[in-house]
Amino acid sequence: MMLSGNRIIPDEEVHISPLDRGYYFGDGIYEVFCIYDGALFEKEAHFQRLLRSASEVRIALPYPTERLEELLGELIAANGMDTGLVYVQITRCAAPRSHPFPLNAEAVVTGWCTEYQRPLDQLENGITAVLLEDIRWHRCDIKTLNLLPNVLLKQEAMDRGANDAIFHRGDTVTESSSSNVMMVKDGVLWTHPADNHILHGITRAVTLKLAGQLQIPVKEQFYTVDDLRAADEIFLTSTGAELTPVVKLDGQPVGAGVPGPIIRRLQQAYVARLPGSSSRNTI
Amino acid sequence: MMLSGNRIIPDEEVHISPLDRGYYFGDGIYEVFCIYDGALFEKEAHFQRLLRSASEVRIALPYPTERLEELLGELIAANGMDTGLVYVQITRCAAPRSHPFPLNAEAVVTGWCTEYQRPLDQLENGITAVLLEDIRWHRCDIKTLNLLPNVLLKQEAMDRGANDAIFHRGDTVTESSSSNVMMVKDGVLWTHPADNHILHGITRAVTLKLAGQLQIPVKEQFYTVDDLRAADEIFLTSTGAELTPVVKLDGQPVGAGVPGPIIRRLQQAYVARLPGSSSRNTI
Repeated sequence: MMLSGNRIIPDEEVHISPLDRGYYFGDGIYEVFCIYDGALFEKEAHFQRLLRSASEVRIALPYPTERLEELLGELIAANGMDTGLVYVQITRCAAPRSHPFPLNAEAVVTGWCTEYQRPLDQLENGITAVLLEDIRWHRCDIKTLNLLPNVLLKQEAMDRGANDAIFHRGDTVTESSSSNVMMVKDGVLWTHPADNHILHGITRAVTLKLAGQLQIPVKEQFYTVDDLRAADEIFLTSTGAELTPVVKLDGQPVGAGVPGPIIRRLQQAYVARLPGSSSRNTI
Repeated sequence: MMLSGNRIIPDEEVHISPLDRGYYFGDGIYEVFCIYDGALFEKEAHFQRLLRSASEVRIALPYPTERLEELLGELIAANGMDTGLVYVQITRCAAPRSHPFPLNAEAVVTGWCTEYQRPLDQLENGITAVLLEDIRWHRCDIKTLNLLPNVLLKQEAMDRGANDAIFHRGDTVTESSSSNVMMVKDGVLWTHPADNHILHGITRAVTLKLAGQLQIPVKEQFYTVDDLRAADEIFLTSTGAELTPVVKLDGQPVGAGVPGPIIRRLQQAYVARLPGSSSRNTI
């Protein structure tokens, strides 16, 4: 079952118009929520970011987020989902193709659930990454449907035998294909400032808060490719990936080549925040 | 009637899957053709560019361009179109949402015709433009469905009372929301090199060829915002806009504030290339 407009209907009944601006311009925004114990996790932060994305691209939501929350609840129930992901996207409208915003635009809401288990193996053992030039636009802080560069770079990383890409814009490390990037050097946690060149990740913010509680010094500052290569620890943060260690960068071991002590402390603190039954199979 | 896959069917029967990667990633490419006298104009160049775009993003077309040409012919006939535009887009496939390319991807082809008359008033009198920062990605040479920045900048230009935006990346003038940009200074025609920061426009290439024939010196070189402000003439080139003069930039007249002599010569040479009946109502 999917969310289409303000109804939950069978997947095969969801028909998108070829004139949906989401289809030919990518003119829309989205959010991904984790579901634990059948409930949306960190929902206030996700709804707040959805509203911000909509506002930045000037899409008027067809109903209040309270109604959206209600519908997502129905969607989860209709799919009998306990643990997984909810994806929801909102496009400007369907209209003849022309760049300016159409008058009387009626936004199109589409959402679905997918099975998803916490990536325990990757959380435990880490993943590999390669550095690739960040070719994206200059408003990466908005969660839009223009994701082709992320797709191309992710695929290129996999073609090179790695799990994911870490992007750099010129010398500056920005983020990953669908996660923020953090590094640890000499006990200090570094991450790119939340400006227009990275997504303002919710797990990123949670991680920085946890670091504060654990008295791990944090620098939200630019750092370079060379800094990253010399890091003691590297990890990615996102709703689905949580805090995933990167143990190899461009084929070279990161630190000792195994997840380091700071990420382990942060992972433990993160898991402690998950709803009860989700944290039982913790790493 | 629309083109859907390899059939021409009524618009209301074209149903796009919500799981089409074009819908949630903008993972696709497109072309726009002019139709004159019921036939595709500059078709070889457009098909060649379509193939290049597909190749750059590694989308495998579901059939050869010969078959696509045949289908577009049927589409034009089914719509009884004499003069207008044909739009066609190809997305990677429909599949569960995940960044890497799916295996066995079956590309989705969708196309339609729209009424379009040559913009005689704008060709004659010109349009107004404002300078806006180019926030797009760094592969603007690929004609992809990731067009949200173009949409946002076009709308911002209109909100400022102008017809369109001229983009600059830092100091360098790049292009417009859906056209290339050229300027004339001291009798020399300047335009941004065909690199990764602009679309390799077909009308742009034709214009440069015509300039050669007319012995107008051409510089395919970077030029700055200040250069543009000091230009004698400015114009946009695209399939639909042809060669459209810009007579006001940021509220200031360009040159004498009316279309200049070089664009007029180029416009005449361009119109002379159009199929017979289209050039009759020439400016």
